[in-house]
Formats: sequence, C-alpha cells, structure tokens
Amino acid sequence: MLTYTLEKNRKDGLYEQLYRCIKADILSGTLRTGEKLPSKRMLAEHLEVSVVTVRNAYEQLMAEGYIYGVEKRGYFVSEVDRPLQAPAQSALPAAAQSEEPWLVDFAANSISEENFPFTVWSKMMRRTILEQDVGLLRPTPYNGALALRQAIADYLYQFRGLTVSPEQIIVGAGTEILYNLLVQLLGREKHYAVEDPGYRKIAKIYESNRVPLHHIMLDEAGMPADELRRQGVDVIHISPSHHYPTGMVMPIGRRQELLRWAGQQPGRYILEDDYDSEFRFVGRPIPTLFSIDKNERVIYLNTFSKTIAPSIRISYMILPPHLLEAYREHLGFYACTVSSFEQYTLAAFMEQGRYEQHINRMRNRYRQKRDAVIRMIRTGPLAHWAEIMEQDAGLHFLVKLNSSITDDELHRRASASGIRLMMLSDYYHDARESRRHILVVNYSGIALERLAEGFDRLATILEQEENGNV
Amino acid sequence: MLTYTLEKNRKDGLYEQLYRCIKADILSGTLRTGEKLPSKRMLAEHLEVSVVTVRNAYEQLMAEGYIYGVEKRGYFVSEVDRPLQAPAQSALPAAAQSEEPWLVDFAANSISEENFPFTVWSKMMRRTILEQDVGLLRPTPYNGALALRQAIADYLYQFRGLTVSPEQIIVGAGTEILYNLLVQLLGREKHYAVEDPGYRKIAKIYESNRVPLHHIMLDEAGMPADELRRQGVDVIHISPSHHYPTGMVMPIGRRQELLRWAGQQPGRYILEDDYDSEFRFVGRPIPTLFSIDKNERVIYLNTFSKTIAPSIRISYMILPPHLLEAYREHLGFYACTVSSFEQYTLAAFMEQGRYEQHINRMRNRYRQKRDAVIRMIRTGPLAHWAEIMEQDAGLHFLVKLNSSITDDELHRRASASGIRLMMLSDYYHDARESRRHILVVNYSGIALERLAEGFDRLATILEQEENGNV
Repeated sequence: MLTYTLEKNRKDGLYEQLYRCIKADILSGTLRTGEKLPSKRMLAEHLEVSVVTVRNAYEQLMAEGYIYGVEKRGYFVSEVDRPLQAPAQSALPAAAQSEEPWLVDFAANSISEENFPFTVWSKMMRRTILEQDVGLLRPTPYNGALALRQAIADYLYQFRGLTVSPEQIIVGAGTEILYNLLVQLLGREKHYAVEDPGYRKIAKIYESNRVPLHHIMLDEAGMPADELRRQGVDVIHISPSHHYPTGMVMPIGRRQELLRWAGQQPGRYILEDDYDSEFRFVGRPIPTLFSIDKNERVIYLNTFSKTIAPSIRISYMILPPHLLEAYREHLGFYACTVSSFEQYTLAAFMEQGRYEQHINRMRNRYRQKRDAVIRMIRTGPLAHWAEIMEQDAGLHFLVKLNSSITDDELHRRASASGIRLMMLSDYYHDARESRRHILVVNYSGIALERLAEGFDRLATILEQEENGNV
Repeated sequence: MLTYTLEKNRKDGLYEQLYRCIKADILSGTLRTGEKLPSKRMLAEHLEVSVVTVRNAYEQLMAEGYIYGVEKRGYFVSEVDRPLQAPAQSALPAAAQSEEPWLVDFAANSISEENFPFTVWSKMMRRTILEQDVGLLRPTPYNGALALRQAIADYLYQFRGLTVSPEQIIVGAGTEILYNLLVQLLGREKHYAVEDPGYRKIAKIYESNRVPLHHIMLDEAGMPADELRRQGVDVIHISPSHHYPTGMVMPIGRRQELLRWAGQQPGRYILEDDYDSEFRFVGRPIPTLFSIDKNERVIYLNTFSKTIAPSIRISYMILPPHLLEAYREHLGFYACTVSSFEQYTLAAFMEQGRYEQHINRMRNRYRQKRDAVIRMIRTGPLAHWAEIMEQDAGLHFLVKLNSSITDDELHRRASASGIRLMMLSDYYHDARESRRHILVVNYSGIALERLAEGFDRLATILEQEENGNV
C-alpha cells in the first residue's frame, strides 16, 4: 500500500500533499503504467485521512491525466513520460543594452512633457471615472467609442477642413497597429511603396508583414507617379503635408497626379499619413489628399501620440465608404485596442476645446523654440559650417553642413562627445554620396542649454576636421 | 490686375480671403498655368492691404503648390487640374445592423460587471494619477512597464506555478494583437493549426493573416500529434487547460506527446492559450505546458480582458529565451500598445493582492451561479431533454439535447423566441451530423431570471417538436 507522511498543519493541505506524492511516484516510476491504485476508502484508512481527501487527490490526478478510472474496477496509472523534471532554467539573453545617457539626442524626436496640460488631463481622467463609472467596464465597438469618433470628426471638420462621418473613423492603439490592419484589409499580395528617404519604422512594419515593398525615391515634389507605374506599385504610404525628414510639402499638382494614378486602376490606394500636420508654423494647414479625392482611393491616418504624449496610444484612420464596408465584413471581429477609459478621457478633452487649446499653445511654443534654435545656429560657433534648410513646419528641420567630414565619421566623433546625431543619409534606403552632410535637427524634446552645448561640441568636431587634427 | 473685395472684419482675416480668391481663380481657370501674378507690392497697393497680407497669401499658395516663385522674376501659376471640386459626398454604407435585443444571449460569453470591484479599481486609477503624475506621459518600453511585468511574473509564480522572468513577458492591447505579432515573429510561411471545434475568432485572425491554416479535429485528449505530422503543421494554437467550447482538459500524456512533437523539428511551436485557467472550480489549476517544456517550444498567452473587463485591453505573452531575442531584434521597434496609465493601474491592483482577491471572489460567484444554472436545468422544464456534460471549469458548459430537432431549426425557432443560441456544431469547421444537439451554455453574463425564462422557452420549442406542432 502507498505510504506517505502527510502533515495536517501544512499550508498546502492534505489532499494537495497526497496528490503531489502520488504524482512524484508516477513520474519517478515507483508507480508503473497500468498499475492499480488502492481504492479511495482503503487508502484513506491506511493514511488516516478522510475519503474526501483521497478523492480530491485522485480527481486532480485524473484531471491532469496521470491516472484514469475504470468503472467498477478502480484507478490505474496512465502512460506518461518519465522522468519529467522541471525545465532547466535557461539563461535569458541579456536585455538590449540600455541607451547611452546622451548629452544631446537628436534622434529622440520626442515631445517635451512640460508642455502638456497634465492638470487638465488628470482632471478629465478623474471626471471620466466619476461620470462613466462601471460603464468603463463595457467594451467599446470595434471602431472605438462613438463619443471619441464624434469628437475627432468635429475636430477634423473645424481644423482640417475634412467632412467625415464618425462611422468612417476607426480608432486603434497606435498607427503601427492600423498599418498592420490595413495590410490585412488591402491584401498582402499587393505591392506597397514607402518614401525614400523616409521614417524607417514604416518600412519595417511592411517588411515585418512580408509584403512586396518598394522604396520610391522622392523627387522635389514627392513620389513620382510614373515611377509607381513603372514599378507596378498598388498602395503608397506618404506624408504629403509634411514629409519626414525633409519637411517637404507636396504641391497640389503632385497631389492631383497621385490621385489620378490611384484612380486609374482598381485596387490602388494612398495611405495619407498626416502625423505632423498640427505643427505647421507658416500659413494655413495644407488641405489633405483625402479631402480632394473623388474616387475613394485615400485612407487618412493620424495619431495623438505626437500631440499629447507617446504614452497615450490613440490613433485613428478614416476609410472611404467601400473600404469601410470591407473592413466591417472582414476585420470587424477585431476588438478595439484602446481601453474605453482612455477613449472617453480624450473625447472629453477634445469636446471641451482643450485639445485645440493645447495644440495652439504647443504650436506657439515650438515656433519660439525653433526660432531660438535657428538663432543659436546662425549666431553660434556652428554658423561657419551650417546652412538651414526647410523650416516651416514640424518638430525638426534640416541643416546642411559645409564640411568634408563623412557622415560616418561625424556620427562616430559626435557619439564620442555624447551627441547622438541623425543625418539625412540615415533615412535613405538607397545610399548615395550626394545626400550626405545634412543634419536632421529634432529639437522638440531637447532643452535649449543642452542644444547650445551640443552645437558647440559639433562645431569643435568640424573645426578639428578643417584643421586636420583628429 | 486681380481685383477682389476683401472684408476687414471677417473672422477669416484678409490674407486668408485673398489666398482663397486667388486659389479659386486658379482652379476655375481664370488664372492660367504659367500666368504671372502681380508683384506683392503692386497687388497690395491695388487692393489697399498691407504687403504682409499679400506675402502671406502668396506663401500659402506656394506651400500648397498652386503657384511658384522664380528669383528676380516673380510668381507664376503652377500646372494644376481644373476643375477641382469638393468630392461628392458618397453615401456611407449603413452600419451593420445593431444587435437584436435578445432576451437571453447564450453567445455573449461576457463576464458580469457587477462582480468587478470598480470602487477599488477607480481608487487605483486615482492613485496612479497622483503617484505617476507627468510620468504617465513617458512611454513604456516595447514590452510594457516593468512594474506590470513584475506583477504578472509574481502572480504566475504564486498561482500558476510558473517561474518566468519579467524580461520574458510582452504586454499588448489584447491577445488578438499578440497573435498578429507572433505570426510576424514565427513567419508567415509556416503552417499553423487551430482546434476543431474551437473559438472561431482565433482561426479568423490566422485567415486574415493569410497563413497556411489547418483545422485539426480533436480526439478525446485534444490535438493528435500524428495528425500534425501527417498534415505538416509547424505551429499549433491550443488551450490545454480548458478547451473552448468543449471544456476538455488535456491530459498529461497528450501534453507530453505534443511537446515531443514540437521538439522533433526546429521551427515547431506551441501557442498555449491559457485564457480561462483562473476559473477552474474543481481541484488545483492544471500545470501549464510552458512549465514542463524543456526545449523552448511553448509560448504562453493570457489576458485580463476575461478576468477584469473586456474594455480593459491588457494581455501578455511569455516567450522562451531564444524567441525573446528574435522578438527584440525583429519586432522590438513596435511600441507597446497599452497606455502607461492602464499598465500602472493594473500593476498596483495586482501588487496589493486585489487581483487575487477578485479572482477568488469571481471563482466562488461563478461556481455558485453555475450550480444554480445546472440545478435550474435538472429540475426545470428542460430536464426531460437535457443531459449536462463537462462542467468542472470555465464560464460555460455543454448540454446535450435528446431531441430530433436539427440545430438549424433550433437556432431559427429560438431566435424567433428572443434567444440567441450557441450550439457545439457552430464551433466546428468540419461539420458532421454526429456533433449536433449540443448546446453551449455561456452563463457568466446572463441574469438567472432571464436564464430561467430562456430555458422555459427552449423547453417549449422542444416540446412542440416532440408533439409535431410547429
């Protein structure tokens, strides 16, 4: 008979001890496959425990498949692998080395959090908790809470000249997810094209989805339509309002040309990534492709991660009617990825005009900061080498360096001085010498004192290069 | 000379009026391609506005590509399409008809919100706002906030017997997103397999990703390994702790067999979907495949949407070390999809033992409810036709109906009586007669009174069928 010492006062309880002892005996081979176990009553008497204890242990062993019962005959040991040891703790690969603590990080491209009205936002959060109460536990529809979609539609109408119905808006936890959904919607057999130069992450998403991907070299107006025809592209991903990193604005002629290209064949689409349009400093916002598209070929995308905070994962896309129908049918089963709480908070923030206020305030602050940074370059030690390019919009601008130093060498030496640089050449898929010596200044998240120090150090590097002292 | 009537006191300002007038003339063809515009100074004098007003209007038109400037010569009209009208407002397709207001919806499979300690949760939310403050604006790492990953690791260690490092955990806004990422991680050329019968949404996600998909018929222990070999499957998606909808628990022998299958060839993986393991009512939780895997072949997934609320979009997966490395390298660029606020709130909820308390309370309530529902079936009018199957775990169980009515007919008649049914046959990819007449009772979100009424109506339908009165 099975004999185990079970302790009454142990935390894990008698039945669990018994279950573990029998399991250990099965795994060690002490109890062999097919061997009959004592009846519950007999084992209970033998071990001086209750029948319930034994029954619970047997039931657990049965549930896990270690033993099986045969009616009127009793319990038997199942066939299991032996020995079944705990898995060896595999050594985990070390986490990617944490980022260097840069003095100045021109790659960060972040927005500065001191500009965000956190007090107002947290008030909205508290109000949402109070107002929505347990309603927060109810899921929102697949396309997001109506309150938020309505607030977005109103905002777009007033500030972007877009007339869209809340029905057309699909809310998601970041544009990255929306791109993934769009690949599933438009089809992965299609040929996609991204801008060269461009924001690397966008190409990565398409690469990660293993779709045929084309890197289209931009001319002075953006993607050339004849190149799209030549390469057999179906879907283009562009940022016509403000191209990153060149800052280029697509002229109306090219916009029309691309719309014509899209309209010429079924299945051609334009993904209009309008991510930075709120920070245009000169003149009115540029009208969107979406608003002048007559053939339902444009999908508009934008995000709040750039204007509120990257930790707030709310983006949206606007689908033309026929795609909306297809989305509902084929992808409507995907749950909305943003929690209802954050959706209602943002909706309240927008409804009360707080978002608009915030954008206006940010636009002013960034304009002032950009002016200060440009002044700093023009009057500081970098002036000798620097020529400022595209500067009308967005949270970055370009600076051409009149120096013979290679981009690689400049990267290396700047890095040694605590400066993480971004050069225009870093954004090119197709690398050519002609595009070198252009600095991308992402200034939005960097304090002015640090920027000044960073420019000083860069000037020192360029001076050493000019003097041949390395 | 261009002559427009500009009004000083209009809200849109002089420069914007001028910009719009010139744009309209370009689009209407009044100003032709290549035509020279008057100089800024001359137009300003002519219209009696300041030179700045004209300059702003010209700059806006240039930025949008309607005109271009040639140094020392002036401004000219660009080549644009005419006429460029506002897009016709296309009629939107009507939204999918909103759900019928069912008396009883057995398909809903929701959790009831009255069971959630919303007061505690909202306290945690308020505390998170206070404690994290502007820190909430900072993004979390790609794999989620460390505080949350640590809390999950601690929970899994204590309640699921899993020893994992927080480094191995990747947090995402719902398991659906994690499945999408896994397809990108493991490769879309691989052959995936889902359970038949099974939860339809999972198959839909793989279908939507256009990967080779196999529906593997389950035997009495789950997916048979030899069938996987025969069909050339690489990756299986299973829920061994509690299969939906049969409620089946995979015995240890089959678990070992599947682990052996996975270990036999590189590139084979098991996605262990542990979604319902918290609600096992009898005995201890079943050990996970992940915990007995020695070859880094198992990826563990779970979600808080089932245990807290579907509106809280937080799920996670645990990767074995070598996949973790691959994930960081190839998919680490994807930002975490859950806002930092919700991550910190959940972390606090778990750290203070509130999650455990909640799960325990829920388990008791659902056990009581399940017992009441079963009693209701056994003693009510449905008793004559109903035989209760699998009932040890989860928020649903199966009821076999001893009736000749077809599933389709039962669906139709129940629907006419305000009851949305789910039958086991609805979960099968491969439809065969033998699996019919089995009801899937998702009871968790339905009030008992309504359930009683629903069972009454079902009994009436079965009685009519038996008596030949339709």
